[in-house]
Amino acid sequence: MTKVFTTKRMLQFGDCDISGTAYFPSYLNILNGVNEEFWAHIGFPWHHIIWKERWGTPTVHISCDFSKPSFFGEQLDFEMTVIKVGRSSVTVHHEISFDGQKRWSSTQVLAASDLDKHCSIPWPENVREKLESLLVEG
Amino acid sequence: MTKVFTTKRMLQFGDCDISGTAYFPSYLNILNGVNEEFWAHIGFPWHHIIWKERWGTPTVHISCDFSKPSFFGEQLDFEMTVIKVGRSSVTVHHEISFDGQKRWSSTQVLAASDLDKHCSIPWPENVREKLESLLVEG
Amino acid sequence: MTKVFTTKRMLQFGDCDISGTAYFPSYLNILNGVNEEFWAHIGFPWHHIIWKERWGTPTVHISCDFSKPSFFGEQLDFEMTVIKVGRSSVTVHHEISFDGQKRWSSTQVLAASDLDKHCSIPWPENVREKLESLLVEG
Amino acid sequence: MTKVFTTKRMLQFGDCDISGTAYFPSYLNILNGVNEEFWAHIGFPWHHIIWKERWGTPTVHISCDFSKPSFFGEQLDFEMTVIKVGRSSVTVHHEISFDGQKRWSSTQVLAASDLDKHCSIPWPENVREKLESLLVEG
Repeated sequence: MTKVFTTKRMLQFGDCDISGTAYFPSYLNILNGVNEEFWAHIGFPWHHIIWKERWGTPTVHISCDFSKPSFFGEQLDFEMTVIKVGRSSVTVHHEISFDGQKRWSSTQVLAASDLDKHCSIPWPENVREKLESLLVEG
Repeated sequence: MTKVFTTKRMLQFGDCDISGTAYFPSYLNILNGVNEEFWAHIGFPWHHIIWKERWGTPTVHISCDFSKPSFFGEQLDFEMTVIKVGRSSVTVHHEISFDGQKRWSSTQVLAASDLDKHCSIPWPENVREKLESLLVEG
Repeated sequence: MTKVFTTKRMLQFGDCDISGTAYFPSYLNILNGVNEEFWAHIGFPWHHIIWKERWGTPTVHISCDFSKPSFFGEQLDFEMTVIKVGRSSVTVHHEISFDGQKRWSSTQVLAASDLDKHCSIPWPENVREKLESLLVEG
Repeated sequence: MTKVFTTKRMLQFGDCDISGTAYFPSYLNILNGVNEEFWAHIGFPWHHIIWKERWGTPTVHISCDFSKPSFFGEQLDFEMTVIKVGRSSVTVHHEISFDGQKRWSSTQVLAASDLDKHCSIPWPENVREKLESLLVEG
């Protein structure tokens, strides 16, 4: 498994605002779907861990730079890397580009959390191992 | 006009995910609506400047800390301050709380932008003056 | 309590698409919020019945006519009436207008449903009585 | 080209509400994306006709039956057929199922519309021909 997870998303009609470019909250909905795809890809689909194990990975921090606008109809490339793994958190970075031109990026911290108690929990051992194996530094 | 803009938003059914707490992209949709209300409050409604003057205020940076979850049905308090005014940008800060308990915060940079050319423009003089009059420092 | 529930919603930036008019799924998100406000108004807030009593009112049918577009920045008037009450369902009608001009309408059936079993349940007695008291016909 | 257009959509975390099933306005956002994919498939991508030809296909009517709930994580099958073609409108039907079990369906009327004047226009000749070639009856 390579350390960079890549996927694509078309910027759809419903993602765009009156300017014909992405509405930024829609960008974050798309980003959330990319994260969801990543977790399925590494073997821990959210719908499995949420339904069967009653924990999830809510976002506790996000920082985004929208350096250039993206336009309705563009096929965007997402490159995702794991940059830090903590006891109950993971920091991921996304670079989003179109046709080789950088459009925006985000750095996001997700935390393992008990779905019912709404408190953080340590990563299950196999999850932590998998995340650490994907660390770009080290 | 005080330097702190405050408003309220109820966390509705449609804003919440399977955990019964806010889906973070929905938080940002709500935040965008709060910003929209602020601009109307200071005399420059987005629907006026976009329809009549063909410029808008897209977000070029946002950073959020979601320190505690908010629950479906809670009435959230938003406190917004202007912390920096540039030639064509403004930095605003939001503190969001429920019943006096901090839930999340964001720091966001919006830039004046030509709606058709998708490039930044200097603030119109009267907009810059108004934004500067609201600066919390100085 | 009058038999017509009225409320207003501003068509915000985030509700509109590239044409500057409402994106229809956003219309339905707004409509859902209006329904949520209605249920609080009649004494059964969704956040109470869902959190405390573990039942909700999912939509099982909706039919909408979007006869004229609504534009970003318009303040829309919602008029809601209860037109039929069944054992575990209620049919409501919404007329949405701007400045006296009809924009769209919907007829919607909501069903009382057990939140955990995902099956329909009869209305609690006090809910059925309240809904019947609001019936526009007879 | 067969007369039934099929595609799939995973019901993602962000599409679901507190019950773990689809939030119905999110269903309609997904449906809109399926329609968008259909128009690209038949040779008239929305981003082309909107950007280059300044017309679109807003929804003027929709009727949906949500007969059974769909759950977070399910991969839904969409089957779309063209059931009527008018001078400036088209009626399409969607059947949505999971693992062979029907979940919901919709009948929807889209109208060709001038993007700037917000009024209906006749279908361009090549669009009308393509839509008529897909009619399931006749």
